[in-house]
Amino acid sequence: MSKVVLASSSFTRKKILEDAGLVFSVEVPNVDEQELKGALLFKGASGEDIAGFLAEHKSCIVSTRVPSALVIGADQVLECEGIIYSKPKNLVAAKEQLNTLRGKKHTLISSVVVAEGGKRIWEHTDRSLLHMRKFSDCFLDEYISKQGKSLLDSPGCYQVESAGIQLFTSIEGNHFTILGLPLLPVLHYLRLRGAIAA
Amino acid sequence: MSKVVLASSSFTRKKILEDAGLVFSVEVPNVDEQELKGALLFKGASGEDIAGFLAEHKSCIVSTRVPSALVIGADQVLECEGIIYSKPKNLVAAKEQLNTLRGKKHTLISSVVVAEGGKRIWEHTDRSLLHMRKFSDCFLDEYISKQGKSLLDSPGCYQVESAGIQLFTSIEGNHFTILGLPLLPVLHYLRLRGAIAA
Repeated sequence: MSKVVLASSSFTRKKILEDAGLVFSVEVPNVDEQELKGALLFKGASGEDIAGFLAEHKSCIVSTRVPSALVIGADQVLECEGIIYSKPKNLVAAKEQLNTLRGKKHTLISSVVVAEGGKRIWEHTDRSLLHMRKFSDCFLDEYISKQGKSLLDSPGCYQVESAGIQLFTSIEGNHFTILGLPLLPVLHYLRLRGAIAA
Repeated sequence: MSKVVLASSSFTRKKILEDAGLVFSVEVPNVDEQELKGALLFKGASGEDIAGFLAEHKSCIVSTRVPSALVIGADQVLECEGIIYSKPKNLVAAKEQLNTLRGKKHTLISSVVVAEGGKRIWEHTDRSLLHMRKFSDCFLDEYISKQGKSLLDSPGCYQVESAGIQLFTSIEGNHFTILGLPLLPVLHYLRLRGAIAA
């Protein structure tokens, strides 16, 4: 039975796999994601391209260290009106980003790749559509002051699994895609490979 | 600002509201849900009728105790091929139920009611569609032995937020509806009523 490794420093992705009852280890890929993203954007890459490339890059880097394992890498990109957003650098930038997203629909694109022997052997990309409501300035200030630095962990400055849910009017799409790891397709592939019980 | 009360003994519903950052208290309605459900089924009630009636019943009972509060009551019903399922009484019944649902699609119907002054003043019902995969007997035995009595907490014998997710091929619908409390419509109503910040 192949060992499963998660190539990620994300607390949420680790929790998703743990909650699902998987046995796996975590290896951090140590990739400068912002730099890579910047270079891809400069070349005119789409949101889907970027999420797919970064998921592949992270899984393959770790896979060269543990070539016999099935290494899961994932990435998520936020796209709103043709613009791709990155994690804000500080709370001032977070407030700007939330102000821009307010009242609009945005898309979360989540890619997941499994690598083996240093190469991508499987991939899946999914999208979800989120409609941010026209919250008041007062709500925004309170939200930022309560959530603090946790806002810097995601390009949308929210976690739907906590108070971030109060930002939304509607959410369409799979919950795990929104969290950043399309789980059901991954489980399906791991079962096909005999890495988890069928 | 109206006080918010959750009329429920459900750990999951309490956690949903807590995670969303709401300030509220919990009052257990002490209703014999199985008896009520049985009587409604006997009368030929639909899944939607049952979920709506029980959500209303629970919220109104608690609302008579705290008439000035906004009291949230909720209920969830599982429907598969025209049959309505209840929580299994023991692990033998849970295994039977999972055997019946295996390989089929089922619907979760979640109703939520807000009561005030002992009366229903708002309601919302939502549905989600879940496709259970054809898992092996071996998987089923291991699942039951690992999950134990937690299987008795839901009519589908699973929690999608834990290892129960391994039962599924696909899930369509809102995550909070699946958990048993359509959250976004509730938040919208509480904002309209000024009970949470807009």
